[in-house]
Amino acid sequence: MKARIHVTLKNGVLDPQGKAIETALHGLGFGEAGNVRQGKVIELDLKGVADKAAAEARVKEMCAKLLANPVIEDYSVELAG
Amino acid sequence: MKARIHVTLKNGVLDPQGKAIETALHGLGFGEAGNVRQGKVIELDLKGVADKAAAEARVKEMCAKLLANPVIEDYSVELAG
Repeated sequence: MKARIHVTLKNGVLDPQGKAIETALHGLGFGEAGNVRQGKVIELDLKGVADKAAAEARVKEMCAKLLANPVIEDYSVELAG
Repeated sequence: MKARIHVTLKNGVLDPQGKAIETALHGLGFGEAGNVRQGKVIELDLKGVADKAAAEARVKEMCAKLLANPVIEDYSVELAG
């Protein structure tokens, strides 16, 4: 089973990387771009895990323990295969 | 219209950040995690763009010019709203 995890800053948390991208996009003539936010995406294989509910619980545990900082970040998990 | 862009390293390109995450997950007891890859996700609003095809072309131009390094990275674009 494959998992894809999105880790994004919570709304209201300052995102300097997103702001830098927005400024650069405007400088390159992409004035329509606004409210740019940057996050992380982590893809991984889950070996020997067949049950979707168990897999999701396990991946959420990974997020809570390592992949995301729950104080300032949100995460979402997608499973496939 | 909202755009979500995934920028990931091409297959075969070494991903030290993904490897570090994998090692850390194994150390925390998540031995089932394998083939971990880390990428970026960029979310942005497109102001005053109504046509989906035009929006997609514009966002792909942003990727080619700034957001991704086409030598080692792939990107994909999702549009919503």
